[in-house]
Amino acid sequence: MTTLINNEKQTTISQDADLVTLINVFIVEPENQQLLVDLLIKATEEVMCKLPGFISANIHKSLDGKRVTNYAQWRSVEDFRGIFNNPEAVAHMPAIGKIAQSDPTLYEICYIKKS
Amino acid sequence: MTTLINNEKQTTISQDADLVTLINVFIVEPENQQLLVDLLIKATEEVMCKLPGFISANIHKSLDGKRVTNYAQWRSVEDFRGIFNNPEAVAHMPAIGKIAQSDPTLYEICYIKKS
Repeated sequence: MTTLINNEKQTTISQDADLVTLINVFIVEPENQQLLVDLLIKATEEVMCKLPGFISANIHKSLDGKRVTNYAQWRSVEDFRGIFNNPEAVAHMPAIGKIAQSDPTLYEICYIKKS
Repeated sequence: MTTLINNEKQTTISQDADLVTLINVFIVEPENQQLLVDLLIKATEEVMCKLPGFISANIHKSLDGKRVTNYAQWRSVEDFRGIFNNPEAVAHMPAIGKIAQSDPTLYEICYIKKS
């Protein structure tokens, strides 16, 4: 099926795309979930989206209040690792680390099934 | 920007979509990572994709070998919960549970940023 879409506010998951996927699950107390979302949006808007190789960030709030997950796309592993050498990016991390534990993991996509 | 795409093997993440997102992170020993991917693909092909409300499954392999994550989309929370009342679906779970721990969590999307 071929579809005409406006893709400004849509992210595409594709096996053919030349990128690396970061799935970062944050464990958080429900009373801090919205604050964590706000901190991640602030970090993305102020720094991450301006770094070389940034493709997308997609912030997900769990329905049970206990998780926030960032599904993010970077051009390469090296571009992703560059975050940790950028003082402006690193400056956002303590406030996030104070209220959440995270498990940043890099992935490749191996299978897609659509309905 | 408006783009013409072939979306048969692409999944779209969108804030406007009327769906619920399951992000299920499986923790696995690296020597079992490919087996786990194969079991998840088998379950998806044989059962999940035929259940009411299935929209997509997107299997991700971590580069470090220690995680497999399914980013899946269902029409509703009720449709997702229906899996656990389907004997054919449940039959796939012991083999997966034998080699991996999972953390199935339902989410809504609250923010998307593109480069």
